[in-house]
Amino acid sequence: MSRRLFLFAVHNHQPVGNFDHVVKAAFDACYRPFLEVLAGHPGFRFALHFSGPLWEHMEKNERGCWDLVRELAGRGQVELLGGGFYEPVLSLIPEADRAGQLRMMNDFIRESFGQRPRGLWLTERVWEPHLPKVLAEAGLEYTLLDEEHFRCAGVRDLGASYITEEEGRTLRVFPVDKALRYLVPFHPLGDVDARLRAIHDAGGTAILGDDGEKFGLWPGTRARVYDGGWLRSFLAHVEDRGIRTVSFSEFLDTNPPAARIYLPPASYEEMTEWVLEPEDQEALARLKAGVPPEARRFLRGGFFRDFLRKYPEANRLHKRMVMVSDGLRAAGAPGEGLRHLYRGQCNDPYWHGVFGGLYLPHLREAAYHHLLEAEKRTPDPPGWITLDYDGDGFRELVYRDAAFGLMVKPSAGGALVEIDHRPASRNISDVLGRRPEAYHRQGAKDGEGEGGTGKSIHELAKRLPPDTAELLRYDLYPRLSLIDHVFAPGTTAEAFRSAAFEELGDFVGGAFTPAIAGPSLRLERRGSVRGEEGGRPIVLRKTIASAGGALRVDIEIENGAGRPLSLLFGSEWNLLAFPHEYELRDDGRVSLYGGALLFEPAGAAALWAFPLRTLSQSEEGFDIIHQGYCLCPVWPLELAPGTTQRLSVALRESDAR
Amino acid sequence: MSRRLFLFAVHNHQPVGNFDHVVKAAFDACYRPFLEVLAGHPGFRFALHFSGPLWEHMEKNERGCWDLVRELAGRGQVELLGGGFYEPVLSLIPEADRAGQLRMMNDFIRESFGQRPRGLWLTERVWEPHLPKVLAEAGLEYTLLDEEHFRCAGVRDLGASYITEEEGRTLRVFPVDKALRYLVPFHPLGDVDARLRAIHDAGGTAILGDDGEKFGLWPGTRARVYDGGWLRSFLAHVEDRGIRTVSFSEFLDTNPPAARIYLPPASYEEMTEWVLEPEDQEALARLKAGVPPEARRFLRGGFFRDFLRKYPEANRLHKRMVMVSDGLRAAGAPGEGLRHLYRGQCNDPYWHGVFGGLYLPHLREAAYHHLLEAEKRTPDPPGWITLDYDGDGFRELVYRDAAFGLMVKPSAGGALVEIDHRPASRNISDVLGRRPEAYHRQGAKDGEGEGGTGKSIHELAKRLPPDTAELLRYDLYPRLSLIDHVFAPGTTAEAFRSAAFEELGDFVGGAFTPAIAGPSLRLERRGSVRGEEGGRPIVLRKTIASAGGALRVDIEIENGAGRPLSLLFGSEWNLLAFPHEYELRDDGRVSLYGGALLFEPAGAAALWAFPLRTLSQSEEGFDIIHQGYCLCPVWPLELAPGTTQRLSVALRESDAR
Repeated sequence: MSRRLFLFAVHNHQPVGNFDHVVKAAFDACYRPFLEVLAGHPGFRFALHFSGPLWEHMEKNERGCWDLVRELAGRGQVELLGGGFYEPVLSLIPEADRAGQLRMMNDFIRESFGQRPRGLWLTERVWEPHLPKVLAEAGLEYTLLDEEHFRCAGVRDLGASYITEEEGRTLRVFPVDKALRYLVPFHPLGDVDARLRAIHDAGGTAILGDDGEKFGLWPGTRARVYDGGWLRSFLAHVEDRGIRTVSFSEFLDTNPPAARIYLPPASYEEMTEWVLEPEDQEALARLKAGVPPEARRFLRGGFFRDFLRKYPEANRLHKRMVMVSDGLRAAGAPGEGLRHLYRGQCNDPYWHGVFGGLYLPHLREAAYHHLLEAEKRTPDPPGWITLDYDGDGFRELVYRDAAFGLMVKPSAGGALVEIDHRPASRNISDVLGRRPEAYHRQGAKDGEGEGGTGKSIHELAKRLPPDTAELLRYDLYPRLSLIDHVFAPGTTAEAFRSAAFEELGDFVGGAFTPAIAGPSLRLERRGSVRGEEGGRPIVLRKTIASAGGALRVDIEIENGAGRPLSLLFGSEWNLLAFPHEYELRDDGRVSLYGGALLFEPAGAAALWAFPLRTLSQSEEGFDIIHQGYCLCPVWPLELAPGTTQRLSVALRESDAR
Repeated sequence: MSRRLFLFAVHNHQPVGNFDHVVKAAFDACYRPFLEVLAGHPGFRFALHFSGPLWEHMEKNERGCWDLVRELAGRGQVELLGGGFYEPVLSLIPEADRAGQLRMMNDFIRESFGQRPRGLWLTERVWEPHLPKVLAEAGLEYTLLDEEHFRCAGVRDLGASYITEEEGRTLRVFPVDKALRYLVPFHPLGDVDARLRAIHDAGGTAILGDDGEKFGLWPGTRARVYDGGWLRSFLAHVEDRGIRTVSFSEFLDTNPPAARIYLPPASYEEMTEWVLEPEDQEALARLKAGVPPEARRFLRGGFFRDFLRKYPEANRLHKRMVMVSDGLRAAGAPGEGLRHLYRGQCNDPYWHGVFGGLYLPHLREAAYHHLLEAEKRTPDPPGWITLDYDGDGFRELVYRDAAFGLMVKPSAGGALVEIDHRPASRNISDVLGRRPEAYHRQGAKDGEGEGGTGKSIHELAKRLPPDTAELLRYDLYPRLSLIDHVFAPGTTAEAFRSAAFEELGDFVGGAFTPAIAGPSLRLERRGSVRGEEGGRPIVLRKTIASAGGALRVDIEIENGAGRPLSLLFGSEWNLLAFPHEYELRDDGRVSLYGGALLFEPAGAAALWAFPLRTLSQSEEGFDIIHQGYCLCPVWPLELAPGTTQRLSVALRESDAR
């Protein structure tokens, strides 16, 4: 028997919430042709993973593909891989949901294709050391990981499989060869062959597992892989060279592990860089360049969970997901709610690297949609309740009625961190801020670099689009709603928009004291306003109440100083609406979502409003993305000593009283 | 209110199995005087942790201390810390046992001292990110960690508390100041004061938590701390300077966390070095010395679980512990068995750093004793069973009767990896090998260094004892039992002892094929013996059977070659017995454990026997430790072509048939 073994796994995924036409195009350009080519080489065995969203789409819309998978699975050419059904990062979701999603995928594959999955595709290869137990309990025996995982564990021989365990529950782990991952299918066959030879000559097994989208969907790959015949040539070459492809399961059953090892948390190397702040990414890159290869095992990038620290928007989504999961379990977890929850756990909007992920509003929107649908299957709290839903050590206030779901953060400016329009199951406050990204600088630097052919998406030099100055102006504070600004008189809309204004108050991000009064929540802060002669005391009170389809906020500003005070007050709201859902009306109100909601700042002198746009990277280059609208009604106020001024802002359903 | 805050926690621990007189001496030299001095400063608030073994000893034998703790707790000077009752490394033990041990300590403290622990001392500060959930579910709200944990997470401000979470279950984490940890009580008060000032001047809170043994038990500290008055002066100084000591709980209730963070697995920095192999320790040290401070966050030592990879003896103990835990749960976990299991989870013998730990046979013996006591509360398997008890991907064979418990590893030379003498609840095969340790080289290098005063145990330069050449000769293979040697004719006992012999067979560590035949286990390997003309086929069969208090191994050696073969065959056994438990009798048998067991090599020409000793470090210097005896009966064999020779070795109870 030839020991020139090649283990090959392909992982296909499209996020929950991706556009149907994009998914269809992916089948046309990539998934279907890939399977068709592979079907022509029945001796080429490989492992195949489709995530749940793709299986569901395929079952309904791509029957040809479905039948092809059945055929390949039936004849043993394909070993199907399990995983969390809706492709969650397992370590990010509650343990009970891990087990549930793994089981859901096992059941689906068994019922649809007659195989019991023995291995799983670990979402984004995000590993934590306690995972083997839940995987073993789901009957899963192996997964694929990256060189980075093994390097961190001090493992040198990567052409073999290993075993790890938690509480004695074992899991076999296969290291994916990074060189192969970069070569296939971007480089000439000769390069791939040289790498395979090098692995085999050293007595190792060649192991490759990667995203299937590189076979037709990533930039330039369709022409290369199919029209250019790369894939056919590759398969013929493997056969000609007598390289033997076996299933991971067959390998498992016939080859003992090289050693028992323990892997610290890791993912593929690029992921451990993306999770870092831009300046840390640069520091790490410098360090990596400067140390000898044998010291590389001691260098570690960031921890995947730090995406929750780097992006508050990802953290809010994550904590809401955990809250909904807890609520569902407490309510007895009915089936349909659970499926919505699981859909809301799909990994993409929880992080951002070379893929858009978190930056894509339609993915975040889909996640919130499913979480809110799941939440609808649980009882609403009776009025306002307090809890630290986001685990930051401060208590938030939560409210739900038929029209609105509200989350208020007294500790952070008494702001609304979430506004759900419940009839639409939509979190309308879910906008993403503008923040520095490492590729903003790299993009500017590498702009001269070459284009797209023959390079993996990690090697592509990307060029920043022109006229991005506005997009590279970063936010001064999180883009929540009900943010209280005290502007200097004369501040302009343009200064506000370009974040070039002076904040005179200390209310943005300041701590408010909450008090629940029946259906209302009252927030108070005894703050101050800077003047030429130092700070002057101001008391700000906000009363939030939802009733009959209208969310109303009353704002009281009390001049606590002994002399009169002139100021320009603004109440900033940041709402996720797409251009076709947004209309600034002549009466100073904003109509949202085809008129489903009206934003009404009562008696404001002006409404400063502008679209929020970000500049992010994706596998194809740079994307300018519309994230929603910033709305800031302003009121010039003249406050005599000891007097109080009252303002109000409302968000009401069109048919609200 | 003074913002010059000082949070102080003391952790006291002696391992399960430590000698009573050592524990008594620790109370005399350290725990009691420490509490007495602190009692004289009622305004000095601190957190106190005694591990379960100490609480149990104190309750029974140190009533004065017990009453003093009650008094200090009653008046609110002391906040008692929880933790796993028998001081397990939480991430090493099964989740159900984590919860059980945490609950046991909570209950004990509440019933004994009337406090509900809100914080815990995390054993050896061994952190994994999924711990907050089990801790929160046990009602625990905070713990202390090290600078290393926070550095890995990129946290720069260490004079504050943070919050982390798992599934939304939060835990507050306090970083222990490493400089204070090294200064107290080893350096002059002025140095400590300077550090406190530096922390307070930067607006931070001073946080110190460390082993209580530094106050009287570690080398040189008793004279310094009590006779020299260091502790009294320190307490007076804190009071004079107006530094305010508050309980961790009070701090928690009045100070919000600085941020929500996610900590990857870590422990104190030294621990992350000890877990590495010697050459890796040196490589890491070189790397640390060479990088700029801001890059330190990207440098990572080893993962605590790697102690199980570094020391097979620790791994065997760990896997037995998990096996017993599983067995107890399957059997319905009766109370007394559970307490034995928990005692067997005490961390010390599972690792080795500056403390003896794993190297101390009486600690390993105690751990196995409790595990075997727990196992006695579960049903014995019916004859031989197969399972991969150690999670290495190969199946072992397990057998238990009234006299013996046996674990056989076909994949590793068909050796006995564990022999339990069950009436004594003793793992008599538990010997520790001789292996390179980083301090073997450092000790040789630094031997010229200065001695013990004014330095923490991490800073002490230790001098290797003289005449250690034998101890620094490292084992060629794991010291299991029933190891099959084929020596060249003329090999001497001395050559065997000094690991300077030639192995002609391929049976040591080679794979055997097992077959269960009723009460017997038969192991076979078709191996070979090297000769001048190349390898010659030999078949080795070993039949293991226990009956009526006697464990008998029959060995068959078949010459599969076409010509006669002369060889010297040896069956190596390594048994844990102390010198007073060992007697080599004139009849060639070895009497063990006061005659409780007899080791009988039938018809051997000679018995090569020697004591096994290791050289390890402890907080006081270097220890030469008797680990047991190596027994290797040898038989010179003349094998005609195709013939088989039969030998046997037995281990029998003195009253066995």
